[in-house]
Amino acid sequence: MFKNIAVVGAGAVGFYYGGLLARNGEPVTLIGRQANVDAINKNGLFLETASFKETVRVNATTDMSVVKDADLVLLCVKTLDTVSAAREARAFMRPDAIMISMQNGVDNAERIKEELDFDVISAAVYVAAAVPQPGVLKHTGRGDLVIGGDFPETLLKQIAEMFATAGMPCAISAALPQQMWTKLVMNCAYNAQCALTACSYGTLVSDPGAIQNMMTLADECIAVAKAKGIVLDPADIRDRVLKLGPAMPTTFSSTYQDLAKGKLTEIDSLNGYIAEQGKRYGVPTPLNAAMHALVRLRETRKPA
Amino acid sequence: MFKNIAVVGAGAVGFYYGGLLARNGEPVTLIGRQANVDAINKNGLFLETASFKETVRVNATTDMSVVKDADLVLLCVKTLDTVSAAREARAFMRPDAIMISMQNGVDNAERIKEELDFDVISAAVYVAAAVPQPGVLKHTGRGDLVIGGDFPETLLKQIAEMFATAGMPCAISAALPQQMWTKLVMNCAYNAQCALTACSYGTLVSDPGAIQNMMTLADECIAVAKAKGIVLDPADIRDRVLKLGPAMPTTFSSTYQDLAKGKLTEIDSLNGYIAEQGKRYGVPTPLNAAMHALVRLRETRKPA
Repeated sequence: MFKNIAVVGAGAVGFYYGGLLARNGEPVTLIGRQANVDAINKNGLFLETASFKETVRVNATTDMSVVKDADLVLLCVKTLDTVSAAREARAFMRPDAIMISMQNGVDNAERIKEELDFDVISAAVYVAAAVPQPGVLKHTGRGDLVIGGDFPETLLKQIAEMFATAGMPCAISAALPQQMWTKLVMNCAYNAQCALTACSYGTLVSDPGAIQNMMTLADECIAVAKAKGIVLDPADIRDRVLKLGPAMPTTFSSTYQDLAKGKLTEIDSLNGYIAEQGKRYGVPTPLNAAMHALVRLRETRKPA
Repeated sequence: MFKNIAVVGAGAVGFYYGGLLARNGEPVTLIGRQANVDAINKNGLFLETASFKETVRVNATTDMSVVKDADLVLLCVKTLDTVSAAREARAFMRPDAIMISMQNGVDNAERIKEELDFDVISAAVYVAAAVPQPGVLKHTGRGDLVIGGDFPETLLKQIAEMFATAGMPCAISAALPQQMWTKLVMNCAYNAQCALTACSYGTLVSDPGAIQNMMTLADECIAVAKAKGIVLDPADIRDRVLKLGPAMPTTFSSTYQDLAKGKLTEIDSLNGYIAEQGKRYGVPTPLNAAMHALVRLRETRKPA
């Protein structure tokens, strides 16, 4: 058992995974922005999931130095803040403490390793959730995760069991890179289209034009993955893209949510990452580049 | 001189060209929707152009049957309504009356010919304008036009002189199809991107990602034009695309304006037309197809 778990970044992902751990009695401290911290310290963290509505008491603070007490740190910040948040947390972390990157994108662990020479466990997290107001989590789909990497099997098992016991199925996979890339493709196919059109995943997947875009976006991603040595099965990927919408019909992407709140998005780590890597490896990615450019421009405007 | 000029469709284009003709003493009647007709009958048509602000008295009605008195009909409806409006007007038109299509897109005259077996003069109209409220035109750029087609030279000259005398430079061109296609490419490069990002033409043209999209969109258009026998010079087209934004930096596309008002757009006649013709001729148009799909989806949502 971990004696103290710090969740760095109190958004939808941090609230969901950290909140459910706290609900199961794990010693969780959420580290986030003032508005969320104030709301949680006053009213607790309100979890509205598909199966229950419940207020969970959990420690919350804006003070990163509490990381010094943690033996497990869940990095749940936006990918824009990956390196800066990891660096700040690392300054306080005990040498034997473990960090898990629970973020979108495929290169967070790589970036942290490059910048801080520090090995973190990677997780592919699958959850549809939003923070409609400070201290409130609205969960609309899934909530499982996959972990992996070059860490002792006993440690990975301990982590997986902790999540599973708290109601979040957690697999350990040797094929984690493929799984993270597969998730990236889903994000590239849905996030920007949802953000630019203000249409839910269910609406997108019922539109032939949007589906055609998804297929083109996915094909570009698969080609970039291949250039980087990650083999994805095109038929499997297309099938997963087509099934995601029906499985989460009412979901709006985090990219949409960020734009609606007037915040910067993670688009640089999604379609932008594909476009950048495509350029590096000489793989054409016009549609991912287009989505990246459109969302970036939209970020400069007022919320929709 | 024409004895009676009916403007079918009282939006930005009809207000601008019809309004400036009326201001110059031409016998113009605007035919449009109730809100605009009421505002014009009560207060006149208010023209706010780059060079003057003036209220123009002009006849306005919702009644299409007044077309029976016209010897010249300016068709200024959205391309969605091209055939239906032409059919309705045609039912009242004198046999010797002339119609000019003053619309976006390249196939209005063709569609009218196919559906109604009726020859209309085509015009490429160049004007940046909006109707911020009923009976009010805000003009932000250009205001010239080019006409052409298989009509008597004397008639075309008479029309061109009428517009020119009223302050709207009007060329007669044997290369009208190229000019209409060139305008279509500009629309395909700017309209959807502006609508999806809520960024002005000036902002778009200062963004490398948006420029890259414009070039890809333009290249797809040029390839489709070529398949249809219309030869466009790629270097010239690219140059025009890059110069449009700086020439109209504060402009927002009609597509943006339509979405903002919760109205259907003309996207089927712009990027949608390129995607459709690309499919017909086997020319790949993934980015035009994407823009078409995104704007179509956006039409189903509430105004931004």
